[in-house]
Amino acid sequence: MLRGPARIEINEVAPRDGLQIEPAVVPTDAKVAFLDALSACGFARIEATSFTSAKAIPALADAEAVMLRMQRGAGVRYTALVPNLRGLERALSCRPDELNLVMSASETHNRANLRMTRAQSQAQLLAMVEAANAAGVPVNVSLSTVFGCPFEGEVDADAVMALAESFAHAGAAGITLCDTTGMAYPTQVAALCERFQRSLPQAGLTIHLHNTRGMGLANALAAWQTGVTRFDAAAGGLGGCPFAPGASGNVSTEELVHMFDAMGVDTGVDLARLLDVVAGLPALVQRDTDSQLLRAGTRLRTHQAPAWLAEHFVGQG
Amino acid sequence: MLRGPARIEINEVAPRDGLQIEPAVVPTDAKVAFLDALSACGFARIEATSFTSAKAIPALADAEAVMLRMQRGAGVRYTALVPNLRGLERALSCRPDELNLVMSASETHNRANLRMTRAQSQAQLLAMVEAANAAGVPVNVSLSTVFGCPFEGEVDADAVMALAESFAHAGAAGITLCDTTGMAYPTQVAALCERFQRSLPQAGLTIHLHNTRGMGLANALAAWQTGVTRFDAAAGGLGGCPFAPGASGNVSTEELVHMFDAMGVDTGVDLARLLDVVAGLPALVQRDTDSQLLRAGTRLRTHQAPAWLAEHFVGQG
Repeated sequence: MLRGPARIEINEVAPRDGLQIEPAVVPTDAKVAFLDALSACGFARIEATSFTSAKAIPALADAEAVMLRMQRGAGVRYTALVPNLRGLERALSCRPDELNLVMSASETHNRANLRMTRAQSQAQLLAMVEAANAAGVPVNVSLSTVFGCPFEGEVDADAVMALAESFAHAGAAGITLCDTTGMAYPTQVAALCERFQRSLPQAGLTIHLHNTRGMGLANALAAWQTGVTRFDAAAGGLGGCPFAPGASGNVSTEELVHMFDAMGVDTGVDLARLLDVVAGLPALVQRDTDSQLLRAGTRLRTHQAPAWLAEHFVGQG
Repeated sequence: MLRGPARIEINEVAPRDGLQIEPAVVPTDAKVAFLDALSACGFARIEATSFTSAKAIPALADAEAVMLRMQRGAGVRYTALVPNLRGLERALSCRPDELNLVMSASETHNRANLRMTRAQSQAQLLAMVEAANAAGVPVNVSLSTVFGCPFEGEVDADAVMALAESFAHAGAAGITLCDTTGMAYPTQVAALCERFQRSLPQAGLTIHLHNTRGMGLANALAAWQTGVTRFDAAAGGLGGCPFAPGASGNVSTEELVHMFDAMGVDTGVDLARLLDVVAGLPALVQRDTDSQLLRAGTRLRTHQAPAWLAEHFVGQG
């Protein structure tokens, strides 16, 4: 009854989407060590950093150093966020395997997050897709707030699809549908993912979920049931949205891998290694990151029965 | 694509399954007020208390007082847990609408939790089903650890079904499949729920989920897709299992209602009222209960756009 693809790919976004909003700035050495540890976990993709201005996001001011110093793992594709043509130039100097662009599907969130109208962002991103393709680097476009906007509420699926189509037709290698503030619910996720895959079967759909209202894995399950094979996730559930007060972070990579592992779906990720990395997150970001799975252990990590049991049942068979 | 029943029923278990393991003993007056507040939320069922020995669970020593003093809401069925024939007699004196019995599907958990072998528990519960039916009160049997045992690991589905069949044939009005320590995963939940409903279509299946490893709502979604219409849940995600260190509590009622509300499924529950009750939980149990949904707000609770936006976009259209 519950069916989906036998294999999925995970794009680990904590180094960019997580670290960009951490209050503690992580030193470059620690970022490189974090990336190297993630590279050994088996991810299909890792979003390593963002080539934004140091003024906008001081936490990621060392983008070049991070990209050039990390050890690239075999079979891992390294991507980076680029907000504009200046960032694109900087990124191209660091040999990314692909690049990620971003704009919002809702006008108010786009203005608040990017200080441009959607029309301005769309024009700029289309020029960047062209420039990246000219340089031979594939581009993914991440569309924020497609399942709801924290300022406007519901977001029109027709507008989402029109944006997706414009980027797919312009030569984007992939499109990510982002639930930026955790407003998505399973039937909505399934409906939009089905529509997207029917309209744009070659567009390389990725889904990006947050767990703000507890539905992160339920939404991932819904997407998977429609055939989605690419998921963004952040180790330890790092990340969030500065414009959505109270919002918790991205769906946690370890919980996503744990669920799909249990279902027999191949994620390519070594969960034990990943959990070691997650255990190191509090030291990395200087705060308690409280991974629920790390605390509880994987589902088949069994416990010792209470010592009194053996004695109590002597002679009871 | 994602389909399930248009209407579900929720059994609110926090007054029993939640309060029984809280370190702070809640005074009887506060329990009664909690139950009265829950009764106004629209639940199909509320598990009000447990008629266990005061020595075993001191927190629920006031079971009679609670059952007799609470105001019964129209359309709500009040149930109580009874561990043995002595508890059954006490409960029957308090006019319950139904009773709930419990045993584990795995031998070690049954011994640790109930200090009996499964065979002993099964015989005792069958006698209790008979006694309750003789008194005209319907009985539900909750089977613990059916999706995994914290001591033994995987639990055999054949053994689960054999237990379920024995109680259904003995006249139990309902059977609850419990993921006692959050080991269930969606395809497993769907498979067991399908098998149960195929084998025992009249057996009144309820599903009881925990969110220990983040899969609570994903598992609820999976169960719903197979046609399950009855769900246990606890306000604020209270509860847990004393034999599973690190385990978090039941799936939270407010998150379950919020998800099904968003999907257009009728739960009967007034979410705003429920969130008011959840907001009062820290005062009730004397600790921070950290409801993620209460913190984030419902998905369509929109926020003010930043004040600088209007100024920034003057003349930009």
